[in-house]
Amino acid sequence: MKFGIIGAGAVGGYYGALLAKHGFEVHFLLRSDYAHVLENGLMVESKDGNFTLEAVNAYCIAEDMPVCDVVIVALKTTQNHQLSTILPKVVKENGIVIALQNGLDIEKDISDIVPHATIIGGLCFLCSNKVGPGHIRHLDYGSIRFGQFAPDGQAAGITEELKMISDVFTKASVPVHLADNLGKARWEKLVWNMGFNGLTVILNVTTDRIMNNEASLSLVKEIMFEVIKGANACGYDLEEKFVDLMITATRQMIDYSPSMKLDFEAGRPLEIDEIYWRPIHAAKKSGFDMHMSRVLAYELEFINRLNK
Amino acid sequence: MKFGIIGAGAVGGYYGALLAKHGFEVHFLLRSDYAHVLENGLMVESKDGNFTLEAVNAYCIAEDMPVCDVVIVALKTTQNHQLSTILPKVVKENGIVIALQNGLDIEKDISDIVPHATIIGGLCFLCSNKVGPGHIRHLDYGSIRFGQFAPDGQAAGITEELKMISDVFTKASVPVHLADNLGKARWEKLVWNMGFNGLTVILNVTTDRIMNNEASLSLVKEIMFEVIKGANACGYDLEEKFVDLMITATRQMIDYSPSMKLDFEAGRPLEIDEIYWRPIHAAKKSGFDMHMSRVLAYELEFINRLNK
Repeated sequence: MKFGIIGAGAVGGYYGALLAKHGFEVHFLLRSDYAHVLENGLMVESKDGNFTLEAVNAYCIAEDMPVCDVVIVALKTTQNHQLSTILPKVVKENGIVIALQNGLDIEKDISDIVPHATIIGGLCFLCSNKVGPGHIRHLDYGSIRFGQFAPDGQAAGITEELKMISDVFTKASVPVHLADNLGKARWEKLVWNMGFNGLTVILNVTTDRIMNNEASLSLVKEIMFEVIKGANACGYDLEEKFVDLMITATRQMIDYSPSMKLDFEAGRPLEIDEIYWRPIHAAKKSGFDMHMSRVLAYELEFINRLNK
Repeated sequence: MKFGIIGAGAVGGYYGALLAKHGFEVHFLLRSDYAHVLENGLMVESKDGNFTLEAVNAYCIAEDMPVCDVVIVALKTTQNHQLSTILPKVVKENGIVIALQNGLDIEKDISDIVPHATIIGGLCFLCSNKVGPGHIRHLDYGSIRFGQFAPDGQAAGITEELKMISDVFTKASVPVHLADNLGKARWEKLVWNMGFNGLTVILNVTTDRIMNNEASLSLVKEIMFEVIKGANACGYDLEEKFVDLMITATRQMIDYSPSMKLDFEAGRPLEIDEIYWRPIHAAKKSGFDMHMSRVLAYELEFINRLNK
């Protein structure tokens, strides 16, 4: 079975290297790091032990890659316009595509590009960074929650494909959880992401600073409650007590810069569309106005423009 | 007729100096600048011509001041806790108190302290700065819109006291407008203030930068529409087209740092309570939730805490 990794940054580089280390055949599509990785391999510094993948199947254009049974999309969503040219070349007929990305409706877009593939969404609970060419630093966590895409947005259940992918990642030492309803799982992830990602950029702080200030903690909770209501409007039965769960989990986390904060610091475009506007528009279409999230989205657009 | 000025900063220093320059008897209550002003006078650099008030009636404690017919409150609202000890000492029985301050329900608080006084609110359209001890720099504008306080929040009309104050300020070369409904006038000012004051601090820019970015311009307009709805909920008939008026006026303004931005830059406490929380709570009490303004208020609280 051949695995393809599209984008070998903090997420794709980390999981791809783990798969390869555990004996799977992995092919990496790289861009800026291509020459460096071809010569020096892929280095993973990890709290679970450092390792270097010496011989990497590295490619800089999709045409050179073999057709793969499982293709893992791990680009920043701001680069997703590239997928319409890449995926048809590398995904096997009736293959599997796994989107390890933030935000809403990612799988729908991929399904439009490769309609015969099985599309799986993966929600990563990973704290990792690309600190140099072909050099990943894994700081904490690492589990993935997989769910299968159903075109109607409803529960696809725990399918055979999900179980197979679960086995693969488990063999690669990745803690795996399965979700029978991908749409609901994506909204659950949004509760945290819409609460924290934007505020860490707007206020320019790590999560602990938001947690330790009464005003910002109130704000993050109110945003989270709004996301719950947005999910409810879209037909997903998230409960308000989920907010307490997220707050408690965050209190136990390390002082954390979410992906959007890291993008901001690195001068990369922010994933405002996928993490904010898509859920805001989905909720609006279902009759609920996410006023508070909209303020954050506008502020982020302003900051994003300056940051480029 | 004796005039008392409580707080001789960018607002009180400017208007007090103008009154004195035009022959009125003005007494200034100062704090940090007391010794400097006593020795060097009050210097006004103005686009309308520079002048220095050589001999200033300066006091550093309220007990030393004469009782005044008209007392002008020009403290930052964050200092308003001082008024309950100052005003009873300096306001003549049945005198007039003019609040040249931002925000909502300022006059109600003052009325509780000196219930026999006539309370007038003054909304300053003034771009001025205190740039050093006893040194005011007047950059642009300067008009005041006066309205008389009525305990029921309804229109007090154009009273004799308002006309008298209007005459005084007109003689001192201050452009004056009169409002028959102070509550409505205060909400009208809030449309601009809640739209721009907070965002210039949160995004750390001047008004022109907000105007010239599509996202922040959309945001400022949406906030303004929310303030209109808040005013409507509280019984004031502001119309949505007032927002276009404010945007057009801002486009014609100089690149501007509103008072909250200047406070932020100087490390002073921000007037979040008066400009944001009071209107938010007033609207909420009348059944309307100002969601978007609440996001700004929380973010400002966070920034305010860091800034001190």
